[in-house]
Amino acid sequence: MPELTRALAQLEESLGVSGSEAVRALVPAASPSRAEQGTPTSFDPEALRAVLDRTYPETRAQVRQWLADPAYRYTDTRDTAKYRDQVLAWLKAMADHGLGRIAFPSGNETSADLGAFVTAFETLAYFDLSLVIKAGVHFGLFGASILFLGTEKHHRKYLPQVASLELPGCFAMSELGHGSNVRDVETVARYDAEAGEFVVHTPTETARKEWIGNAARHGRIATVFAQLEVGGRVLGVHALLVPLRDPAGKVLPGIRIEDCGEKMGLNGVDNGRIWFEHVRVPRENLLDRFGQVNAQGEYTSAITGDSKRFFTMLGTLVAGRVSVAAAALSAAKSGLTIAVRYGDLRRQFGPAGDKEFRLLDHQAHQRRLLVPLAKTYAMDFALEYLVERYVKRTEEDAREVESLAAGLKAYSTWHTTAVLQEAREACGGQGYLQANRLAALKADTDVFTTFEGDNTVLMQLVAKGLLTGYRQRFEDDRVFAVLKLLADRATAVVDRNPFAARRTDSDHLRDNDYHLRALRFREEELLATVSKRIRKRLSAGVEAFEAFNQVQVHLLELAHAHVERLVLEQFLKGVADVKDPGLKTVLGRLCDLYGLSCLESANGWFQEHGWLEGTKVKAIRKEVTRLCAELRPDAVALVNAFGVPDTCLAAPIGLGHLSP
Amino acid sequence: MPELTRALAQLEESLGVSGSEAVRALVPAASPSRAEQGTPTSFDPEALRAVLDRTYPETRAQVRQWLADPAYRYTDTRDTAKYRDQVLAWLKAMADHGLGRIAFPSGNETSADLGAFVTAFETLAYFDLSLVIKAGVHFGLFGASILFLGTEKHHRKYLPQVASLELPGCFAMSELGHGSNVRDVETVARYDAEAGEFVVHTPTETARKEWIGNAARHGRIATVFAQLEVGGRVLGVHALLVPLRDPAGKVLPGIRIEDCGEKMGLNGVDNGRIWFEHVRVPRENLLDRFGQVNAQGEYTSAITGDSKRFFTMLGTLVAGRVSVAAAALSAAKSGLTIAVRYGDLRRQFGPAGDKEFRLLDHQAHQRRLLVPLAKTYAMDFALEYLVERYVKRTEEDAREVESLAAGLKAYSTWHTTAVLQEAREACGGQGYLQANRLAALKADTDVFTTFEGDNTVLMQLVAKGLLTGYRQRFEDDRVFAVLKLLADRATAVVDRNPFAARRTDSDHLRDNDYHLRALRFREEELLATVSKRIRKRLSAGVEAFEAFNQVQVHLLELAHAHVERLVLEQFLKGVADVKDPGLKTVLGRLCDLYGLSCLESANGWFQEHGWLEGTKVKAIRKEVTRLCAELRPDAVALVNAFGVPDTCLAAPIGLGHLSP
Repeated sequence: MPELTRALAQLEESLGVSGSEAVRALVPAASPSRAEQGTPTSFDPEALRAVLDRTYPETRAQVRQWLADPAYRYTDTRDTAKYRDQVLAWLKAMADHGLGRIAFPSGNETSADLGAFVTAFETLAYFDLSLVIKAGVHFGLFGASILFLGTEKHHRKYLPQVASLELPGCFAMSELGHGSNVRDVETVARYDAEAGEFVVHTPTETARKEWIGNAARHGRIATVFAQLEVGGRVLGVHALLVPLRDPAGKVLPGIRIEDCGEKMGLNGVDNGRIWFEHVRVPRENLLDRFGQVNAQGEYTSAITGDSKRFFTMLGTLVAGRVSVAAAALSAAKSGLTIAVRYGDLRRQFGPAGDKEFRLLDHQAHQRRLLVPLAKTYAMDFALEYLVERYVKRTEEDAREVESLAAGLKAYSTWHTTAVLQEAREACGGQGYLQANRLAALKADTDVFTTFEGDNTVLMQLVAKGLLTGYRQRFEDDRVFAVLKLLADRATAVVDRNPFAARRTDSDHLRDNDYHLRALRFREEELLATVSKRIRKRLSAGVEAFEAFNQVQVHLLELAHAHVERLVLEQFLKGVADVKDPGLKTVLGRLCDLYGLSCLESANGWFQEHGWLEGTKVKAIRKEVTRLCAELRPDAVALVNAFGVPDTCLAAPIGLGHLSP
Repeated sequence: MPELTRALAQLEESLGVSGSEAVRALVPAASPSRAEQGTPTSFDPEALRAVLDRTYPETRAQVRQWLADPAYRYTDTRDTAKYRDQVLAWLKAMADHGLGRIAFPSGNETSADLGAFVTAFETLAYFDLSLVIKAGVHFGLFGASILFLGTEKHHRKYLPQVASLELPGCFAMSELGHGSNVRDVETVARYDAEAGEFVVHTPTETARKEWIGNAARHGRIATVFAQLEVGGRVLGVHALLVPLRDPAGKVLPGIRIEDCGEKMGLNGVDNGRIWFEHVRVPRENLLDRFGQVNAQGEYTSAITGDSKRFFTMLGTLVAGRVSVAAAALSAAKSGLTIAVRYGDLRRQFGPAGDKEFRLLDHQAHQRRLLVPLAKTYAMDFALEYLVERYVKRTEEDAREVESLAAGLKAYSTWHTTAVLQEAREACGGQGYLQANRLAALKADTDVFTTFEGDNTVLMQLVAKGLLTGYRQRFEDDRVFAVLKLLADRATAVVDRNPFAARRTDSDHLRDNDYHLRALRFREEELLATVSKRIRKRLSAGVEAFEAFNQVQVHLLELAHAHVERLVLEQFLKGVADVKDPGLKTVLGRLCDLYGLSCLESANGWFQEHGWLEGTKVKAIRKEVTRLCAELRPDAVALVNAFGVPDTCLAAPIGLGHLSP
C-alpha cells in the first residue's frame, strides 16, 4: 500500500517523528563541528569597571586599598569566639583608618555623607560579611540613630566615640514577639520626674530584645526602642540610650544579656537578647529630636500624632535597608564571578571523539548564569539611583524614598539568594566545598531577605505606598488624572492589538521602549485591579486589615511589578549615559536580556492580559536564548569588571583552578 | 458642571479609584471582624499517618525505635573530627541492630530487599543526614556494587563484613575531571597476566578520585571504577575492589588519600580524594558479573558492546538515586513540620485594636507553605511507585526504571531545596538559628541536587529516554502509533476549544482528570515539538551533540513536564485507594491543590498553546488561594501525620516555643 506509506510518512514528518535513521541519529555520531559561539564584543574591561565604579570612586578605592592589607584574609571561622574577636579587631582597624568618619566626617548631621558610607559598605561586602554586618550595626544603625534621632548634645558627646569604635553600640529595636511589627514593642521607658530619670523595663518575656547585634559580647551601650510613658500617658515608641556594659566589659546591674547562639551564617556577629529590670538612665539619654521631655515631665513634640512620629523615627531604618541592598548585590557579584569563571574552565560532555564542551557552552548553563548576570548589572544601576534619591531626600519625598528602599532591598536580597543557589548548583560538588566560598556567601546572606525588614512585609509596604499615591493622583487633580489614565490605557492598546502582540522580529523584541511599556502596563493594571478589589471589599463591609489580607498575593505581585519596572528604567538610563560604543553594545545587550527576561518570566500574565500572544512568547524565549549565546564570549570579562579583589574572592575555582 | 462630575465619578468607579473616603479606608479602622477560616476536616491523624506509612511499616517502626534511643541526639557538629567519629559510632550501632542486613538479609542477590532498605534510609533521614549519607555510601553504594557487579565469591567473602560494618567501604567512581561524565574516567586497571594481578593507576591529576565518601578517614576498601585494559585492549569502565587501609587504619602503600575538607554541610561524612600509584590487586578483585578476565588474560562478557555494558553497570547507581529522592523528601517533611507549626503559633500584625493574626492566617503565608505541602504529599505517593517499580524491575524495563529514578531524584531534591528555603524565610530570624534545625537541613541537603547525578544531567537523561520511546512507538507499529497520536491530539482539542478554555467553575477546576489531561497534553506537545526541532537540525547537518545542545532548555522542560504528570498520576492513584471519607476529603483537597498549582505555575505555557484563556487563569489563581484557605485549619494535622519524631525534629520553634 504505497499510498498509505506515503501518507504515514507525511504525517510522521509533520508530527516530528521518524523511522529508524532518527533513532540512530540520537546516538552522537563522530562528526564534531563545534557551533559558532560568536565573537567577543570589543570593549575595554577597565572602562567597564570604571562605569560600575562611577559613584564615589575614591571611597571604593580606599576600601579596596584597606582590603588589600594581608590582615584582611579569611580565617577559620568555625571557632565562634575567635571569629567574633577577629571581626572586632578588623572593625577597629578600619575605624582607625577612618571608616567611622565616612558617614559623618564632622560629627554632625549637616556633614553626613551616607552615600559614601553605603558605598564603603558595598565595597566591604566583597570581604567577610560578618564584618560588614557588624560595621552596619555599629556605624550604621547605632550611629545613625544618634545622628538622626538625637540632638546636638548627643552628637557632641557620642559621635566621636562611635567613629573611633571606643563605644561599641547596639540598635535594640526588635523584640521576641515583635519583629516586623515594631509599633507594638512592649519595652517600657517610664519617666520618673522626681529623679529626672527614665526607667527602662522589660515587662514580659515576649518583650525581651532579640537579635541585637553587638549585644552578646562587645556592645557597651544601646539605642533602645520603648513605649514612652510620661505622667501616666503612653506616647508611643521612642528611642533612648541605655548603657549595657562598663568599660571593662562587665554587664551593668539590672541588665541581663544572653547569646542568641550559633546561626546559619554571620557567626562573627555577636547577636544577643537583652532584658531590662527597671534600669534607670538620665533624662538626657532620650534621643529627643522628634519628642522631648523636660525636667518637670512635660512632653513636647513638633509632630502631632503618634503614628506620624513613629514613622518619622522609623525613617532611620532606611539607611540600613539601602546598605543591605548594596551588600547583597556585592555578594551576588562574588558568587557570579566564581560560577562564571568556573563555567568557562570546567569541561563536561561533548561530541563523540572531540573535546568536551566547557560548561558555559551548554545552552542551559548559559541561561542559568547569564540571565542573573544581566539582572545583577541592572541592579547596579538601580541601586545607584536609590543611593542618590536617599542622599537627596527631603521631608516631602521621604516616604517615597522609604518605599523605594523597601522595594529594592527586597528585590536585591531575593535576587542574591537565587543567584547564589544557582551558582552553587552550577559549580556542582566544588560549589559545596567551604574552600570555594559559595557556602559562606549563601549562609551569610540568607538572612538578608528577612532582616532589616522582612521582604514580604516590605513589599506590602511598597504596594500600600502605590495605592496611596494612586488615590492621591485623583485627589490632586481629578480631571487630569482620569484623562491621563485613559491616555495610558490607550497607549497600552497599541501594544495589545493583535498585530503588536504577534510581532516577533528581533528588532522589535530588543526594543527597550517596548519592554518598558510592557512593564509599565503591568504595573498600572495590577494597581488598578487591586485597588478595585480592595474597594469592593471595603464597600461590602469587610474590615480593612482583612480586606488587604484577602488580596495579599495580588499586592505582592504589584510591588514586584513596580520594582521591576523601576529597575529596568534605571538600567536604561544608565546605558543611555554611556558613550563608548563597545561598552554601549555590551551593556545594551545585557539590558535587552534583562528587559526581555522580565517579559519571559511574566509571560503568563502578559498573555492573560492580551499583551502577548503565543507565537510572540515563543519568539521571546528564543531571543533570550540567543542573547545568552551572544553574551557568552563576554561572560568572563563581564564578571571581571565587577572588580572583586582576588583575595576577597578567595575561591580556587574562581581563580583558575579545578578544585582547591 | 454636574455632568462632568457625574461622568468622572462613573469613570473613577470603573477604574477602581475613588475620592477621599477611600484614602481614609486605607487606614485600618477599629472594626475587627476576623474572617472565617473554615473548619478542620474531620479525619483521624493516626489513620493518615498509617496511609503515609503504608509500605514497609515494620521497617519504619524499627528505625523509629532505633532513633528513640537517647544515643541518637544531635551533638555539637562544629568539631568535624568528633562529628565523624560520632557518625561512625551511630552507624556501627545501627549495623549491630541489623541495618546492614535489611538490604540483603541472606547475603545474596536473590534475598535482596532494596525496598526495605530505601524505606529504612527514608526514615533514618528524619535524623542526622551525615549518618544517612554515610549509611548510603557504605551499605548502599559500596554494598550494592558488590551485590550487583560482583559474583558469588564476592558475595560470600564481603557481604557479611559489609553488613557488620567490619569492613567500611567506599564507592570510588567520580574523578576530579569526570563527575557527571563517568564514561570518560581516566583511572586505569591494567591486567598483568604474568602476575595474575590488576594494576590500578591514576595517570593524570584530573584522574584522581574525588568526593569519595568514607575515604578520608574510615574506609578500608573501595570499589574503584577504572578503564579496564587487558592485553593492550581498552574495554571500557569496570569496577574492582582495591584495599585502602590496613585493619589498624593505616593507608596502604601506593595509595594517597587527602581530605576534601570542610563542606557546606554533611561534615560528618569523611569525603576524600584518592590517588593510585600502580597498585596491584589479585584478579579475583574484579567485580566480574558483566565482564570476566581469566588467568590467561582473556576477556569475556555476555554483553556485547562497551556502551551497553557500561550502562548495565551504571544501573547500580539507580538504588542510590531512589534513596536520595526518599531522603530528600524526609528532609522536606521535617522543614515543613517546623515552618507550619511555627506559622500556627507566631502572630504578627492584625486588625487595629484586635489580636494579631497568626502567620498562617496571612494569605501569602498560606500559599508559600501549603502549596509545597501538597507537593510533598504528592511526592510521597510518587516515590512509593518508584520504589515498587525499582524492586520489581526486570531486564526489559530496567532503562525505564532508571529514567524514572533519575527524574524523581531531580524533582524531589529540587523540591526539597525550594521547600527548605521557603521554610527558612517563613520562620524569619528564628529560621536562621542553628538551634531551629532549618540551617542544618538546608546545608546538608543542598548537595542532593548535584550529587548522585547532577539534576540537570539527569533531566536530560529523562528527556532522551522519552525521545527514544517516542520513536520506538513508530518503529513498533507505525499505523497504530500515528492513529493513537492523532486521537490524543483530538482529545486535547476538547480542552482546547474556546468553551473549555474559559470554563471557570470550581467543580471543573477541581476535576483531577482535567488536570491530568492538561499535564499529558503538555508532555506530548513538548515531546513532539522537541523531536521535530532535533530532526530539523540533524537534517540540516548539525552534529548530533550540538543539535541536542541547541534544544537543551526545551529538553529540560519536557523532562519536567513528564515527571510532573507522573507524580500527579501517582497521587491520584494513591488517593483513589483511600477508603476513609475524612481522609479522602483532605487528601483529595491536597491533590486538587497540587494538580491546579501545576497548571498555575505553567499557565504561560498553557495559554501559549491555547489550552487556557485569561479568564480561566484568573479563576485558577483564585481557586488555588481558596484551596489553601480550606486546607489552613488542617495544616498542623497534615504535618503531624508525617510522624517526624520530636527528638529528630529537635527545633524549639517546631515544638511549641517561640524561640530556643
